[in-house]
Amino acid sequence: MADQNDALVKQLLSRVLQSVDLDDAKSKLTSEVNQMKDANINLTEFVGTAPIGDTIGMVIANVDRGLYAKLHVEGDYRAIGILSARTGGGPQIMAADEAVKGTNTTVISIQMPRDTKGGAGHGSLILIGGDDVSDVRRAVEIALENVPKKFGDVYNNEAGHLELQYTARASQACHLAFGAPEGQAYGLIAGAPAGIGVVMADAALKAANVEAIDFASPSFGTSYSNEGILHITGDSGAVRQAVISAREVGMQLLGTLGETPINDFPSYI
Amino acid sequence: MADQNDALVKQLLSRVLQSVDLDDAKSKLTSEVNQMKDANINLTEFVGTAPIGDTIGMVIANVDRGLYAKLHVEGDYRAIGILSARTGGGPQIMAADEAVKGTNTTVISIQMPRDTKGGAGHGSLILIGGDDVSDVRRAVEIALENVPKKFGDVYNNEAGHLELQYTARASQACHLAFGAPEGQAYGLIAGAPAGIGVVMADAALKAANVEAIDFASPSFGTSYSNEGILHITGDSGAVRQAVISAREVGMQLLGTLGETPINDFPSYI
Amino acid sequence: MADQNDALVKQLLSRVLQSVDLDDAKSKLTSEVNQMKDANINLTEFVGTAPIGDTIGMVIANVDRGLYAKLHVEGDYRAIGILSARTGGGPQIMAADEAVKGTNTTVISIQMPRDTKGGAGHGSLILIGGDDVSDVRRAVEIALENVPKKFGDVYNNEAGHLELQYTARASQACHLAFGAPEGQAYGLIAGAPAGIGVVMADAALKAANVEAIDFASPSFGTSYSNEGILHITGDSGAVRQAVISAREVGMQLLGTLGETPINDFPSYI
Repeated sequence: MADQNDALVKQLLSRVLQSVDLDDAKSKLTSEVNQMKDANINLTEFVGTAPIGDTIGMVIANVDRGLYAKLHVEGDYRAIGILSARTGGGPQIMAADEAVKGTNTTVISIQMPRDTKGGAGHGSLILIGGDDVSDVRRAVEIALENVPKKFGDVYNNEAGHLELQYTARASQACHLAFGAPEGQAYGLIAGAPAGIGVVMADAALKAANVEAIDFASPSFGTSYSNEGILHITGDSGAVRQAVISAREVGMQLLGTLGETPINDFPSYI
Repeated sequence: MADQNDALVKQLLSRVLQSVDLDDAKSKLTSEVNQMKDANINLTEFVGTAPIGDTIGMVIANVDRGLYAKLHVEGDYRAIGILSARTGGGPQIMAADEAVKGTNTTVISIQMPRDTKGGAGHGSLILIGGDDVSDVRRAVEIALENVPKKFGDVYNNEAGHLELQYTARASQACHLAFGAPEGQAYGLIAGAPAGIGVVMADAALKAANVEAIDFASPSFGTSYSNEGILHITGDSGAVRQAVISAREVGMQLLGTLGETPINDFPSYI
Repeated sequence: MADQNDALVKQLLSRVLQSVDLDDAKSKLTSEVNQMKDANINLTEFVGTAPIGDTIGMVIANVDRGLYAKLHVEGDYRAIGILSARTGGGPQIMAADEAVKGTNTTVISIQMPRDTKGGAGHGSLILIGGDDVSDVRRAVEIALENVPKKFGDVYNNEAGHLELQYTARASQACHLAFGAPEGQAYGLIAGAPAGIGVVMADAALKAANVEAIDFASPSFGTSYSNEGILHITGDSGAVRQAVISAREVGMQLLGTLGETPINDFPSYI
């Protein structure tokens, strides 16, 4: 009887443990349901969502001028695209950078809330201006498509995160957000908690002949996020090498505070 | 035997699932125990709590003048009332607005921490000044009583929240916090993540003939919260209509990022 | 048969409940594994971790000058030590205060991100400068060793936290961070949500003859944290008495919003 009980308890525990997988299945189901919901929503402003960071894309064909005047944006456009996320500043900005490259649009505002749902970093609000609503809609679509890729070098564990970004040719979004010279290679190196970003930055600048555009930290250039963030420019090979070297150092340091940090999408750098 | 095992496992899983309800029961029990604790606390400064937002109300009959000088408050009062919360800025401010209407007191400071316990919005610290401690205590009591009602149009899901507020006659708290003209209708329309608030604001201004007082977003007029917040005034029917229209749009947009958003208390608008 | 099922279900539930202890065991194991990882990490910059607050200590022997120029730090040092944490500003600053007392080093930057992983307070980034890397490393080690002690009077429950700090003789870190006069007694009294800190501050100033250096709150002197924080100086006995009196008041008030607040390390005040 004891053996039988044991077997039952084991079976039960196994089922309980499987409920973790049920959660996963539920999450996938939710994601699919959401995609169906996306397809069914009858709101012309809605463009779509990205599968990470609670990222939503929207467009307003003809913005109310009273609202426009209070948006604190550059330029004067009839249509605006909106990329908004709870988690992620860098990935969405890099995605918007791809979007403005391929469309006749301009990023007119980049705002970084102190968010990430309890994490150490930023969310984002990115406004894209254009005179033709179809251009703006296309820009938001391109941005949404690029978000997962740009999360490829965001590594998380229970203690914090690392973020690495790299482009051989920065465009207007990177310039507006980070002061990156347009048309040149640009790299972003971030670590959280912030001190890890300081050591990563030092490693990056020693690893290759690159120029530091700026270094942001909790009191300077962030929205009080717990990140140290280096922005670099220079020869594309050097920028890439600096980013890769910093990533290695960051992985080791963040790993001392918890599990090995992992990314949710494949690394692209 | 297999059938029996299955039955047992089903029973077990059912009990495990019921433990969710146990959590709920525990939560209710905790709430009751807290109410008993509230009744027993022998600290004259304690007034009470509200059942949402970790909201606490306190009063100091005769504030230490050295402290008062460092509180950055307007006016010069002997007694201060304190309404403080982890979650919720708008609801507590609207509740304080009701409180100053009914008592001989003045709101002397409204501060909005970037809180909500991992959510996208604000907490609040509201100081109420008066010369008579019983007036101030009554104001704090009225505010606490009004907090649940003012949460009636706060809708949450796992991705963010919406907040709608409306009053036919704004008083001094709404004026101090949001620039609302006293004695006129006022509406607040907020969405998180912030981009949803932008589209809600556009919908509100197109739905009725109202005036935009201000639009707040992560970098402007918030404490880096991930919200887009429109403040409106005008004819009371128009303000109400604008708020209701924005709510419909917000529910659809926030719903694309997760479950249908729900409110914890009945809608009042 | 019903009895047997009941017994099994009871056994099962007991095992499920025990899994809470398994979590605890896993947490301890993780902590031990991390300590082994700490010992094995082959990065000269890594100094160690503290067992609370996701606190990490690092040192850079010869900082890249391009980075140094962008760190917004005081003074000009070759070596910098870094103390960085997700949770805790006060404890790490008090720990750094002990560190600079005992070594030939200087705290050159104190930054307070709005963090605590969904909690109401701050994390910290503290930079320590020195010309000799071994001095700086020693300072970081002393700081890490002191972090748990300085968490001794941090009390948490699900609604917020209290923090009390006291030193008979403040040093340079307390001066830089809080304006404490060096060499004199200093006390920190914080409550979250912020309103609790207001009442604690009033109680402290009425309990003993101490001087209020400053009072910080969500909009003044914090990084939008949900804290009310009083900084006091004066006779060491009076400062200590004021801190103890405020703690008593804070425990009662925070307790009305949830469980009795508890500390993770023994009280030192």
